[in-house]
Amino acid sequence: MDINNYIFDKALKAKEASRKLAYLSAEEKNKALISMSEALINNETFILEQNEKDLKEGKSNGMTEALLDRLALNHKRIEDMALGLKNVASMGDPVGQVLKMWRRPNDLQIGQMRVPLGVIGIIYEARPNVTVDAAALCIKSGNAVILRGGKEAINSNKAIADTIIKAGELSGLPKGSIQLIEVTDREGVNCMMKLNGYIDVLIPRGGSGLIQNVVKNSTVPVIETGVGNCHVYVDEDADLEMAENIVVNAKTQRPAVCNAMETLLVHKNAAPKFLPKLGETLKALGVEIRGCTETEKYIKDIVSAEEKDWETEYLNLILAVKVVNSMDEAMDHIYKYGTKHSEAIITNNYKNSQRFLNEVDAAAVYVNASTRFTDGSEFGFGAEIGISTQKLHARGPMGLEQLTTTKYIIYGQGQTRK
Amino acid sequence: MDINNYIFDKALKAKEASRKLAYLSAEEKNKALISMSEALINNETFILEQNEKDLKEGKSNGMTEALLDRLALNHKRIEDMALGLKNVASMGDPVGQVLKMWRRPNDLQIGQMRVPLGVIGIIYEARPNVTVDAAALCIKSGNAVILRGGKEAINSNKAIADTIIKAGELSGLPKGSIQLIEVTDREGVNCMMKLNGYIDVLIPRGGSGLIQNVVKNSTVPVIETGVGNCHVYVDEDADLEMAENIVVNAKTQRPAVCNAMETLLVHKNAAPKFLPKLGETLKALGVEIRGCTETEKYIKDIVSAEEKDWETEYLNLILAVKVVNSMDEAMDHIYKYGTKHSEAIITNNYKNSQRFLNEVDAAAVYVNASTRFTDGSEFGFGAEIGISTQKLHARGPMGLEQLTTTKYIIYGQGQTRK
Repeated sequence: MDINNYIFDKALKAKEASRKLAYLSAEEKNKALISMSEALINNETFILEQNEKDLKEGKSNGMTEALLDRLALNHKRIEDMALGLKNVASMGDPVGQVLKMWRRPNDLQIGQMRVPLGVIGIIYEARPNVTVDAAALCIKSGNAVILRGGKEAINSNKAIADTIIKAGELSGLPKGSIQLIEVTDREGVNCMMKLNGYIDVLIPRGGSGLIQNVVKNSTVPVIETGVGNCHVYVDEDADLEMAENIVVNAKTQRPAVCNAMETLLVHKNAAPKFLPKLGETLKALGVEIRGCTETEKYIKDIVSAEEKDWETEYLNLILAVKVVNSMDEAMDHIYKYGTKHSEAIITNNYKNSQRFLNEVDAAAVYVNASTRFTDGSEFGFGAEIGISTQKLHARGPMGLEQLTTTKYIIYGQGQTRK
Repeated sequence: MDINNYIFDKALKAKEASRKLAYLSAEEKNKALISMSEALINNETFILEQNEKDLKEGKSNGMTEALLDRLALNHKRIEDMALGLKNVASMGDPVGQVLKMWRRPNDLQIGQMRVPLGVIGIIYEARPNVTVDAAALCIKSGNAVILRGGKEAINSNKAIADTIIKAGELSGLPKGSIQLIEVTDREGVNCMMKLNGYIDVLIPRGGSGLIQNVVKNSTVPVIETGVGNCHVYVDEDADLEMAENIVVNAKTQRPAVCNAMETLLVHKNAAPKFLPKLGETLKALGVEIRGCTETEKYIKDIVSAEEKDWETEYLNLILAVKVVNSMDEAMDHIYKYGTKHSEAIITNNYKNSQRFLNEVDAAAVYVNASTRFTDGSEFGFGAEIGISTQKLHARGPMGLEQLTTTKYIIYGQGQTRK
């Protein structure tokens, strides 16, 4: 089999399906999503059998416990996926929303209407629930979707995709709306990245190796997600009790995710009072601290931070700490090492809060709150396909709206241009 | 000189400038734009001298009259560029606009604020006025700009860029905000297309060869502009007098631009009454008609259309004409051959107008108006950096707003995530 032909054929079918999907009513889309949800529940035994194959393979290949946990399905996880589909069905349809409409002096009435992007390619790793979540959001927003999961989860993904594709098409989704790439050679991804005109956007989800490969090599437009080297800056005018709560939350509540804090910056005037107590608290929570030489004066027995610590997204219970001479130094540090994901200042100083909000360039900039809130659900979007760290098209948590584009609709009465 | 180092150095300086530009007040930016405008007027003699060099070179290289006309500057054109700068100064500043702001159940207040993209690269051909127009829009929207014009206009561009850069910096623009690439090797463009992390977006402006080269080879995000194979569909329920006016306007008012009509589709029931008279009118206006066999029954002595006529953006007084059996056939034709730029239906049938607006996928979809209105000024945007024909980020005419992204600003009172 020629892999390029195989991928092209999938993309062509998705493109054809997307034309009809674009003007399916919300009622029709919701009906399909609910059928898909029910089918997942009904096919649980088969899906778990197939998942077992992947797990066995993973174990024999020495997959880590953490990865095996991401890969594993069980009754609860299948129920969650099914609930997720129903949740997306219950959300409002972004397609057809008119964002604004105005009348020109010549009486042309111009409106800007949300419409689907067309065909969305999702490239992801070993988490089989992405197969369902991504498909649900793409279908609800009127897009066809091409799913390319990792080879570690291929049996699970096939079983899930089979189930939702059949159920969706039986309840009226255009044939080809959901496509799974069953060949997991890297060549397939290379081919997807060049299908301008067939795939409208690629969204890579996973580790930074995967994401950077797609960003660097794709000529199809990409939405970059995920990498977050996030900072919390504790200003000299901070409420130190609030600062400690936020630092603990941003570092330890779920350290393996992109909106967790990786580096703490502390104003030199706050450091003597703030750092000793914080050090005790963090150590008790099992956090390894890597500090600058100033930090080492206030927290004993820690690792000395090196240049690479400022750059690293640990995704783990490790925290880099630096004492700075001013807010400007903190903002310079963020500018140099940050990934423009989520940045926070803890302060009661009005002027500093305003400067930080205005001058720090990131998807989400916080005053007196934890960076962990950068999330579709926490922002109130209902669901999330990822967190964009790029500037074009979508920035920050992406929900259904970010999977659409707009078109101008113009109502005339015979106007011609002078 | 190493061209890669040269381009990288320009991009780095632009990036540094963009950090300060991002939070310059509208007052400061407007002051710079007005100084730039005045400097252009004061430097007219020098700019015209340099332009003369380009024209001489162009003539000796056998440049066509049309290209020489695009390249040529004179008192009026310099005045127009200077006026353009003042016009942009008078427009509202998109930076800092908060599009929406809401309060979450936990009392976090989340706002979505417009901010500049950062560094914008413009790759264009022989029109020196783009140097001024693009710089003005980028600066007003808080972005640094890297200008890479064609080698045919290099002396004119150097003179213009020198003038506005000096004037801008003297009145307080951060050094490096406007950069001209003075080396016009193709290698320079290749280098710009790989500068992810330094250039935030590339906007190619010019012929389809230039645009496709950038789209196909750039890993920096691109906004695709320009190509328009636009259609007008005359429905069986059309007001035929209105239809003729619109067809004549869309084809002949300015045939060399991307929003001009290239193919006319006519319902078979309208054809017998509509086409004979239209044929006479168009012939009298010097339009060459290339028709399908049905069309040839109604308009005599025309060229027989071939497959390639349906695909061609003539940008000239040539019109392809096809008689269709139904609106569905018209929409299929547009789907197959259109470039998703501007499409129009002429009809008095309510249902058909609604179906056309909903089902045709293009940046601008019209009922009973000329496709020629797809334009930033005509839409009321004040100025235009191009017309996006892609779906991501911006679609249709792009003004200042389309040169921005957003960031979320979050006001907390110590919230942590549960």
